[in-house]
Amino acid sequence: MSETPSTMTVSVLRGVKDLVLEERPVPVPDRDQVLIRVASVGVCGSDVHYYEHGRIGPYIVESPLILGHEASGTIVAVGADVDPARIGQRVAIEPQRPCRTCDFCRSGAYNLCPQMEFYATPPIDGAFAEYVLIQDDFAYDIPDSISDHAAALIEPLSVGIAAAQKGGVKVGDTVLIAGGGPIGIIAGQVARAFGAVDVVIADINPARRELAATYGLRTVDPAAESTADLDAHVFIDASGATPAIVNGIRSTRSGGTVVLVGSAEEIPLSVPEVAMRELNVTGTFRYTGTWPIGRALLESGQVELDSLVTHLYGIEQVEEALSGDGAIDSLKRIVLPGVRSVAVPAVGGAA
Amino acid sequence: MSETPSTMTVSVLRGVKDLVLEERPVPVPDRDQVLIRVASVGVCGSDVHYYEHGRIGPYIVESPLILGHEASGTIVAVGADVDPARIGQRVAIEPQRPCRTCDFCRSGAYNLCPQMEFYATPPIDGAFAEYVLIQDDFAYDIPDSISDHAAALIEPLSVGIAAAQKGGVKVGDTVLIAGGGPIGIIAGQVARAFGAVDVVIADINPARRELAATYGLRTVDPAAESTADLDAHVFIDASGATPAIVNGIRSTRSGGTVVLVGSAEEIPLSVPEVAMRELNVTGTFRYTGTWPIGRALLESGQVELDSLVTHLYGIEQVEEALSGDGAIDSLKRIVLPGVRSVAVPAVGGAA
Amino acid sequence: MSETPSTMTVSVLRGVKDLVLEERPVPVPDRDQVLIRVASVGVCGSDVHYYEHGRIGPYIVESPLILGHEASGTIVAVGADVDPARIGQRVAIEPQRPCRTCDFCRSGAYNLCPQMEFYATPPIDGAFAEYVLIQDDFAYDIPDSISDHAAALIEPLSVGIAAAQKGGVKVGDTVLIAGGGPIGIIAGQVARAFGAVDVVIADINPARRELAATYGLRTVDPAAESTADLDAHVFIDASGATPAIVNGIRSTRSGGTVVLVGSAEEIPLSVPEVAMRELNVTGTFRYTGTWPIGRALLESGQVELDSLVTHLYGIEQVEEALSGDGAIDSLKRIVLPGVRSVAVPAVGGAA
Amino acid sequence: MSETPSTMTVSVLRGVKDLVLEERPVPVPDRDQVLIRVASVGVCGSDVHYYEHGRIGPYIVESPLILGHEASGTIVAVGADVDPARIGQRVAIEPQRPCRTCDFCRSGAYNLCPQMEFYATPPIDGAFAEYVLIQDDFAYDIPDSISDHAAALIEPLSVGIAAAQKGGVKVGDTVLIAGGGPIGIIAGQVARAFGAVDVVIADINPARRELAATYGLRTVDPAAESTADLDAHVFIDASGATPAIVNGIRSTRSGGTVVLVGSAEEIPLSVPEVAMRELNVTGTFRYTGTWPIGRALLESGQVELDSLVTHLYGIEQVEEALSGDGAIDSLKRIVLPGVRSVAVPAVGGAA
Repeated sequence: MSETPSTMTVSVLRGVKDLVLEERPVPVPDRDQVLIRVASVGVCGSDVHYYEHGRIGPYIVESPLILGHEASGTIVAVGADVDPARIGQRVAIEPQRPCRTCDFCRSGAYNLCPQMEFYATPPIDGAFAEYVLIQDDFAYDIPDSISDHAAALIEPLSVGIAAAQKGGVKVGDTVLIAGGGPIGIIAGQVARAFGAVDVVIADINPARRELAATYGLRTVDPAAESTADLDAHVFIDASGATPAIVNGIRSTRSGGTVVLVGSAEEIPLSVPEVAMRELNVTGTFRYTGTWPIGRALLESGQVELDSLVTHLYGIEQVEEALSGDGAIDSLKRIVLPGVRSVAVPAVGGAA
Repeated sequence: MSETPSTMTVSVLRGVKDLVLEERPVPVPDRDQVLIRVASVGVCGSDVHYYEHGRIGPYIVESPLILGHEASGTIVAVGADVDPARIGQRVAIEPQRPCRTCDFCRSGAYNLCPQMEFYATPPIDGAFAEYVLIQDDFAYDIPDSISDHAAALIEPLSVGIAAAQKGGVKVGDTVLIAGGGPIGIIAGQVARAFGAVDVVIADINPARRELAATYGLRTVDPAAESTADLDAHVFIDASGATPAIVNGIRSTRSGGTVVLVGSAEEIPLSVPEVAMRELNVTGTFRYTGTWPIGRALLESGQVELDSLVTHLYGIEQVEEALSGDGAIDSLKRIVLPGVRSVAVPAVGGAA
Repeated sequence: MSETPSTMTVSVLRGVKDLVLEERPVPVPDRDQVLIRVASVGVCGSDVHYYEHGRIGPYIVESPLILGHEASGTIVAVGADVDPARIGQRVAIEPQRPCRTCDFCRSGAYNLCPQMEFYATPPIDGAFAEYVLIQDDFAYDIPDSISDHAAALIEPLSVGIAAAQKGGVKVGDTVLIAGGGPIGIIAGQVARAFGAVDVVIADINPARRELAATYGLRTVDPAAESTADLDAHVFIDASGATPAIVNGIRSTRSGGTVVLVGSAEEIPLSVPEVAMRELNVTGTFRYTGTWPIGRALLESGQVELDSLVTHLYGIEQVEEALSGDGAIDSLKRIVLPGVRSVAVPAVGGAA
Repeated sequence: MSETPSTMTVSVLRGVKDLVLEERPVPVPDRDQVLIRVASVGVCGSDVHYYEHGRIGPYIVESPLILGHEASGTIVAVGADVDPARIGQRVAIEPQRPCRTCDFCRSGAYNLCPQMEFYATPPIDGAFAEYVLIQDDFAYDIPDSISDHAAALIEPLSVGIAAAQKGGVKVGDTVLIAGGGPIGIIAGQVARAFGAVDVVIADINPARRELAATYGLRTVDPAAESTADLDAHVFIDASGATPAIVNGIRSTRSGGTVVLVGSAEEIPLSVPEVAMRELNVTGTFRYTGTWPIGRALLESGQVELDSLVTHLYGIEQVEEALSGDGAIDSLKRIVLPGVRSVAVPAVGGAA
């Protein structure tokens, strides 16, 4: 193991579309923390949104911010209270630090902690950096069978797991998912792992539908075909599109559950539909306790993430990574903070 | 016990604001049914709505319809498969007939049965009639300690119970209820019986607030005072008013539940609010298994219904009963189908 | 479709080890029933127990009884209220007739109905007969991709589904199952379909362990290896052996669930273990709503049942079928009521 | 507020029936802790058991131990991270310190934390001391309407709350409780607050039954009257007596729940009874999140604890307090660590 240097390169967002590289001191772990040399960091839509708009709803970038929150790496140092045997472990990072003492934290719903510090959410720095800190118990050791990329992507996988949990997906269910992007495809794989027997991805984009089909998921074009008779037990919106949500609600069976994951704004909700059909309309905010489940699903092969990776970037190419994220051939883009620059970013993944 | 006559008087809705009395044959119970001489029938907002508009959403009065579905009475005859010892029992009626064989029925959610036949929902006749039929197991015997009126009002009480069940009201909870009408006051009493320690009725009408206070419920005027800090575990809308619903959703704590009971139309739903605060937005449609609970709550005194009754009417006065229902001094109006006409309808109840 | 004859051959248990063939009238369906020409009937341990002992606990064979309750077949006639288009459908039979009106039935727990009539449970006749009746909604149509044998075995599959449901098996779980017989292997497959990532079959019999391994299940020999460190989320006993149950309880993590499926008698239960570790000890009695799930799991390939069939018998060979059931090479034995006699009963299945 | 002295008097158990007073330094709060001047400490059966036997199951008193874990008091100093405004608050103490980082803690089940440090459980000191430390968020402020004694008794109240939660007691339920001691009476009051309409205390001791009746609880003498027909939804054992448990299990309706709270050893469990009636047999170990609920139930008057207090003792009288705990006139004994000695210990409470 090479020695840890005293400074590191980080990619800093100073304002809208204003990203720079900086050299900063490598941080020192607190008693309960580990220092991780970052291997892979997935690009998330929220990173792109901060880059383009400088804010997401109430969260505003008011001082320089390091983006990136889907991360894996290797432990290179530990705090005083952490077992030094962890040094050298490959880990996936759960990028949140709850207070552990509020009612939410104490009752297990730490994702709702009002004191939460979350990677890449202002003013907490994220993982487009050579090194990051996380508390010991939020760094999960990863077996050799799971790649650095897949380990990083346990974060979006956790979004899918939380959606399936919140939706109460169970054996024998029909699950409709709006949106065939990374979250939709991940949620589809997860729903199947939960025992769903009919998982349907609705996307108007034929390329997305084709891609979803390669994961064994059934697809429909909502512009051409109604899903109203699908009678889904659970509908998961991963599109953020109002018509898709309204259509999904209509396609959910009485007593079923609607889980809003995509970043929509305001939707018109028919009260008679919710009341007379006793629908449950809910959403997810991050996740709790999902990393061990995600790791197990990757190990058992029930979920496959590596093929989602379409592009790789070095730390000098974060801007490029964020700029082209919406491209149709782009599914998951990965930044390698330990690499300056990657010659040919596209890896020709699943797409 | 007097002998059952061969014909009976019923109040029939022939069209919008077109109510007439008719003489019809007393029906004969099927094998699994009981014949009930009706004692008390509560007037519900839905009865008024059918009277005034001839329809409620998809349910349209296309042929003459007997209204009334909150009913109590005495069993006077039984079908071949029913224990004749039931003759003479005072009973509360659960006014629905599910198919018992569909997936909903078999899994306990018979309120969602697509083949449901429900009193006073076109084309099924209700209880503004001297005699009605119901299947044996939907007629619940009532002890002497429960009045005919209270027995009839186990129906709206069941609406309150279903709302509290759907909301998951539990010991120690704070529950916000929008609307201080009969359903709001009943839901408030029920929430307290479920163990809620702070039950708050929000109503802009001071008379309604005063009334709610007589039931020991805390009240707020939403026009004067924000409930945003209430941090309610459960919000129950019994108002049907969009601003009240939007306000109630905002007053619900993260992870809490919103139960839509009032007959609202379409509301604007903030997806970020639902998702980032992991709210559960749901509604209730009727009820399952609530009559024994309602009866027990009345017997134990945890819920009190008699004082809700403000007006009494005979079978000839159904039009009068339906016309003035919105009056501010009116809470629950009761029709006595066995009585032709009541001299002074107002009983000077709780109001 | 051949015409239905007026009489049929049935296998009747007249007393302990006293089985005879009889010729009886083919029964006529009631309004809500279908008449089924039986194709395959699995032999269950309970059939063997009635044959050998004339009773199971409180259930005593006091008059001639037809055994067999794991059955599939083809609808050949329907009652007045049943869609005649069902004639000709291949179906799996859920062999129970609940009363549909008691509190258990109305709340969805119809398996606990005190008036239940269940195939092959005295005094209700079962399916070792050329024809049987069942109510319309308990005959599930089966696609061509599911064999007659597999359709019949949706009954034991339902036992496994009910066990996993009761245990709350969920994605990521470790599940320990005691007993590598048919129920154990089925429960193992089901647990995996529910998302369990580590399913362990404990059996002292090496042949059973080998067999379980062919289904991709991990196995342990409890005589040689402790499972105490397994920290199972759920333990399912399909062995009925007290030491296996005691060991399984010890191997369940705090807060976990123990599901007793096997027919054990009385076990010593450590109260401190249950209380201090907050274990949930429960069991299953039959099932509710499992046939559509079982059918879906077979269609999707998540569960495979055909390879469990080791022996086939004709209606004249029921005694032979019941006698040798404990044999080590025997997993599931199938009686074909429409066949008089099968030349070479063993089909050389999974074993 | 008087200044905090540098030393304090504590009551130390050195071995079986070997209690002495010692003078020790007043402890200094860690960053996240508060220092509390103890007001009232309830005597629990576990304190008596340690005093008489030097152990409880796996927990052995191997070094001097301060007993007492049902405590209230006033905050007199706070750690660096705690709001100094808390100084002077009257508080009830939740006497446990979970690790906050294990899977149990993070999922809300911190009572199952394997690293738990719990008052008066070897080797962690308890509250028979003038001053104690607890982490900030486990000290709950108490309004004036709740006495010091009642505040201390939120601990046994929490046992009752946890039992009702685990049992899933709900509106309309029948709840059977074996044992009319403090825990039984508290659990009975709690069950009623959860909405149970029939709460029955079974105790063979007529004095205990009389006492329970003063709390409005129905009572039965199990020696004289069977409870088999009670058909309880939930049975809570607070007796620890095997025959009472066996009887209680028999009195629980199919699908119901049995909660073992009393410190029994091993019971014979009928597997057919558990399986064929789908009973859920479970237990509780301490509690999580119950103090705010207990406080609310005291404030609303749904639970009353002061009348349970029968005896008061000073710090010099701890031995006397522990010795006579089994007396029939004794319900809850309270030690006042700030008082040397109480002239007439008995306060003539509820008994």
